[in-house]
Amino acid sequence: MLGLGTVLLLTVLSPLQSPAPAAAAKPPTTAEVIAATKPGDWRALDPERTLYLELDSGRVVIELAPSFAPKHVENIRTLAREGYYDGLAILRAQENYVVQWGDPHAEDEQAEAQADDTASDAKPKARAMKHGARALPPEFVRPAKGLDFTTLTKIDGYAPEAGFSQGFPAGRDPRRGEAWLAHCYAMVGAGRGNTADSGSGAELYVVIGHSPRHLDRNITLVGRVVHGMERLTTLPRGTGPLGFYEQPAQHVPLRSIKVAADVPQPERTQLEVMRTDTPAFAALVESRRIRREEWFLVSTGHVELCNVPLVVRPVAAPR
Amino acid sequence: MLGLGTVLLLTVLSPLQSPAPAAAAKPPTTAEVIAATKPGDWRALDPERTLYLELDSGRVVIELAPSFAPKHVENIRTLAREGYYDGLAILRAQENYVVQWGDPHAEDEQAEAQADDTASDAKPKARAMKHGARALPPEFVRPAKGLDFTTLTKIDGYAPEAGFSQGFPAGRDPRRGEAWLAHCYAMVGAGRGNTADSGSGAELYVVIGHSPRHLDRNITLVGRVVHGMERLTTLPRGTGPLGFYEQPAQHVPLRSIKVAADVPQPERTQLEVMRTDTPAFAALVESRRIRREEWFLVSTGHVELCNVPLVVRPVAAPR
Repeated sequence: MLGLGTVLLLTVLSPLQSPAPAAAAKPPTTAEVIAATKPGDWRALDPERTLYLELDSGRVVIELAPSFAPKHVENIRTLAREGYYDGLAILRAQENYVVQWGDPHAEDEQAEAQADDTASDAKPKARAMKHGARALPPEFVRPAKGLDFTTLTKIDGYAPEAGFSQGFPAGRDPRRGEAWLAHCYAMVGAGRGNTADSGSGAELYVVIGHSPRHLDRNITLVGRVVHGMERLTTLPRGTGPLGFYEQPAQHVPLRSIKVAADVPQPERTQLEVMRTDTPAFAALVESRRIRREEWFLVSTGHVELCNVPLVVRPVAAPR
Repeated sequence: MLGLGTVLLLTVLSPLQSPAPAAAAKPPTTAEVIAATKPGDWRALDPERTLYLELDSGRVVIELAPSFAPKHVENIRTLAREGYYDGLAILRAQENYVVQWGDPHAEDEQAEAQADDTASDAKPKARAMKHGARALPPEFVRPAKGLDFTTLTKIDGYAPEAGFSQGFPAGRDPRRGEAWLAHCYAMVGAGRGNTADSGSGAELYVVIGHSPRHLDRNITLVGRVVHGMERLTTLPRGTGPLGFYEQPAQHVPLRSIKVAADVPQPERTQLEVMRTDTPAFAALVESRRIRREEWFLVSTGHVELCNVPLVVRPVAAPR
């Protein structure tokens, strides 16, 4: 009575449970596909493109996507390495939308710049940057040429082709020769103002609700959360406009953001991600398109881009 | 720098802010569409088909959908009226999937029924039912005939037509003559076991992540949360399989579920919902398909079923 489904994400993420071997004629379930993967179907996270966001509740791990947003990723690394983020805060948690973090005083600086010279010196100043950039050219799309792309479906109103590239959900437009990361759940982007070049990665957001794909191609996505999403999704929602916290005391402290490569090896979170360019991944997609688990009575024959699990698991053995 | 978007859900839900009047030639933004609605574009919640789920953190309001699931809705009302739910608990919170509540001892009863007669009498028994049913025939789909349906799009891999019926997101298959509620964020369904007729509404779940549309037509949806979603989405995630809480102490107490009609008028939550069968709603959809707000630089020209806001607001004046 309690079971809503027999194989769901947690099962997907626990492939070492012992699924029954598939009969020869029957296509495998997701759990069976994962159980049958070989080491080459997985890739370890590259520490140079992995961020650790440290909260009081623990660590959130973000995989960066330099193939799509090279300038933003480089800037985020620079900011992390100069300690820019350390001691900042989560400022916003908007129901069914995003959680966002950055400098609580960043807006004050903007407001003061626009105000006259009598602005009080007592006001907290925006966090200084040493080497990082406060604004960057947009990286909303990139050339499709030269990019690996595993097409999932053309039934996707937001992109002529929806699929995966280097482990990330993405869209592609062959006519325009463009590709872009898609705003699926857990994707991380760089907040911006009303102009295309007003973002930099100093302020970041993560999708915590139904995937807002209408943001695709409007803002630079830089990666995705691969571990610790629940530390962000369970945060109290802000009661101000757009889900901003109304009182500084409500801000959620951000202890630090570090590049994993700068963290001593024993303190790293050892994760590996299922590749999206292998026959095993194709089998996984098929197992989601046509559900084989006993619980399912009807299969839709379709799986939407943001409903394909991009599987992450702890590295089993020391490397 | 902090603004991710200028008009987002919170703004949508605060239509009494004063948007600039639209210029004659320019289609309106979502906020402008809502500001221009007339009383007939809204409907008050019917207290006979509204549930109040009372948690320690406050009230969650659910609108029931008897047009799609008449037997389940009737059973849920019966169970609520006999006090069945009062003192039960939220048992499951699975990241990017569902929160689920019901009787913590329901499984014990099943297990005992299958065990031999020596089962200990000391074990907690499942909650008794007076008039409610423990199992009902499935209400996964209904005849499309006789049902109002506002088509949104045919670009939807999960249904030949996606749209809205009586304020709920829905799918329709003209060839099969069927319609069904869609598993969008905040939709509420009746948990079931592996057989189609094993659900009853005694146990309910709500979608808290990217909309799991692959569940459509596999399980009975009974309504949606129209107020208080954040009381469910911010619950600690369960660490057991499928997000179940592992310890009874982790269960989140469910004080009661009541039919709004049984609650004294002054204690009711007065809400109204924007109708989905009006020119105003068509304008709202268009404002999401082509974004007019200054922040958006590119419009996708598409809006997915579960990304259309189904707007709810407090009733402004006493009725």
